[in-house]
Amino acid sequence: MTPVHVRIVGTGLIGASLGIALSRRGFHVTLSDPSPTAVRLARDLGAGQIASLHDPAPDLVVVAAPPDVAAAAVLDALATWDLAVVTDVASVKGAVLREVHAGGGDLTRYVGSHPMAGRERSGAGAARADLFEGSAWVVVATVASDSRAVKLVRQVASAAGSAVSVMSADEHDAAVAAVSHVPQVVASLVAARLRDVPEPAVALAGQGLRDVTRIAASDPRLWTQILAGNAAAVHEVLTALRADLDEVIAALDELSDGDGHGALEVVHRAVGNGNIGYARIPGKHGAAPTAYATVVVVVPDTPGALGQLFTDMGAAGVNLEDLHLEHGLGQPFGLAEVSVLPVVVEQLLAALDERGWRVHD
Amino acid sequence: MTPVHVRIVGTGLIGASLGIALSRRGFHVTLSDPSPTAVRLARDLGAGQIASLHDPAPDLVVVAAPPDVAAAAVLDALATWDLAVVTDVASVKGAVLREVHAGGGDLTRYVGSHPMAGRERSGAGAARADLFEGSAWVVVATVASDSRAVKLVRQVASAAGSAVSVMSADEHDAAVAAVSHVPQVVASLVAARLRDVPEPAVALAGQGLRDVTRIAASDPRLWTQILAGNAAAVHEVLTALRADLDEVIAALDELSDGDGHGALEVVHRAVGNGNIGYARIPGKHGAAPTAYATVVVVVPDTPGALGQLFTDMGAAGVNLEDLHLEHGLGQPFGLAEVSVLPVVVEQLLAALDERGWRVHD
Repeated sequence: MTPVHVRIVGTGLIGASLGIALSRRGFHVTLSDPSPTAVRLARDLGAGQIASLHDPAPDLVVVAAPPDVAAAAVLDALATWDLAVVTDVASVKGAVLREVHAGGGDLTRYVGSHPMAGRERSGAGAARADLFEGSAWVVVATVASDSRAVKLVRQVASAAGSAVSVMSADEHDAAVAAVSHVPQVVASLVAARLRDVPEPAVALAGQGLRDVTRIAASDPRLWTQILAGNAAAVHEVLTALRADLDEVIAALDELSDGDGHGALEVVHRAVGNGNIGYARIPGKHGAAPTAYATVVVVVPDTPGALGQLFTDMGAAGVNLEDLHLEHGLGQPFGLAEVSVLPVVVEQLLAALDERGWRVHD
Repeated sequence: MTPVHVRIVGTGLIGASLGIALSRRGFHVTLSDPSPTAVRLARDLGAGQIASLHDPAPDLVVVAAPPDVAAAAVLDALATWDLAVVTDVASVKGAVLREVHAGGGDLTRYVGSHPMAGRERSGAGAARADLFEGSAWVVVATVASDSRAVKLVRQVASAAGSAVSVMSADEHDAAVAAVSHVPQVVASLVAARLRDVPEPAVALAGQGLRDVTRIAASDPRLWTQILAGNAAAVHEVLTALRADLDEVIAALDELSDGDGHGALEVVHRAVGNGNIGYARIPGKHGAAPTAYATVVVVVPDTPGALGQLFTDMGAAGVNLEDLHLEHGLGQPFGLAEVSVLPVVVEQLLAALDERGWRVHD
């Protein structure tokens, strides 16, 4: 059987990683990129063969270009190969779809994608075969889509190791606005407020601040493209968030004047609504959130100490669900907050105690 | 030498933990609480002796009551023992100080405290001797404070294992507004927006959202007291944040109309300012942030696998600085993002590769 021929246009992190993953699964992958260096690097990493004019037409073209040029590259691919299915991997979908439609692209063969994988680093040099393994891959089908086209894109997403989720462009854009784009904006704004805080004040930062702001370290160029490409959906969620913020600010204003009739209720409701929303976030394996039990273990800050802890946990037959490490200010050890299923807590406590760990549930 | 006698008023998480820590360090600790059950539980946990009318006067009274009754309890303690130094542990300091002053309390003997330690659970049952170890403990001295009083509070904070930081009440309140209270409000607001998001949309949630919203699971009652007690400082930071948010919302509005002259610059600047602020957050041990290198290791989701990884890291002489676990949607394994000092990356990669791990830098 002739292997499926996938042309990857753009060999950055996503394109090169996909090429490596698909090549290993037996797909025939050809690669192109405006940068000859980038495409050679991807080839050397095992992402596929460098495309040439003599190549037969691909079955599928994956446009893995930056979001702001994705639609143009999709239109180009649809025009170049009149039978190929074309997808893109941009993290906004409505804008690309509208531009492809406006440009007269064949919507029976264009099916948008959003593999929800990535990392802090970019470029082919950061590529990994398993980048998509276990992550979600949204496939955006429209009423115009050929079922053959949707099937091929789903097949490739699955082959890369992703869990496929089919939704409309609008559903996708509203979803990522709430679960990804708005959290990014807000994390950046909170971190930005730290610019003018005196040194002794930032020294009081704890794990909470570090968690809230971790993604504030993200690339401004990429995020400008993403936020601009999903401006309407992000605008809607941020506007709703601002209304909630306005309520809290007004309540704090009343409270700082010492009165605050009804203001306490507003503050309480804001934090309480956060509890409710937080409880909806799925945990591992895409399952409903599980209420893990947390056990705190004092771990000396030396090589091997944490390894010993997990060896001892493994010996006790206990699986680790999550882990937070907390390093204290000026202290030569840390606390490991180990999350496990509630049902194994007693077993874990007994096993660790027996092996001499300082443990707290 | 007679041991220092510390009376702890309020045996919840903080009071009981402090009692245990100080008792172990040779302090004489007596305990009181409005709840006879709570005080007996703390006694049984080793936090000290239950206070009686026959006790001699304490050298130091630590008021570990909820924030909204802290000042009243401080005034009561100052009046009851006319030589004792009195501190409190409320996480807001200006409001308590003003109330103590207004109530005619002796400000030579009152020195506010804020041990920046805590956990998701509350009550004496959650107490731990090492709760304060390695955390910051802010001591709030005023011009009126006796040096003897400040010294005694510092001594107790150090004995509990904390790193002492002395600042004014206003400095403290502005600091915690920026590094703790505003992040809490914003995390709650982002999580609250998830209440009405359809199920397939929340299923797309990734590690970024989980990090930003983790503290949104916090107790609304406690946070209502904290935010109300620091309303002015939180109001100031939130108002500045809202001005930044307004700019971003206006820019997105322009961008969603397809034009957006200058709007891209606004979005880019917002994310870029987040980079700058984030870089100021100290890492472990209160040191300046270190740029750790990240190595990604594929870990089977079975008991002992992570233990083996850390055993192998330890054998390679490499110390783990931080760790993020990512569990994929519907996949039987996870990715461990291991942060180490950049200088040991090559050594770690070689060692893990040799031992058969799938690793990516």
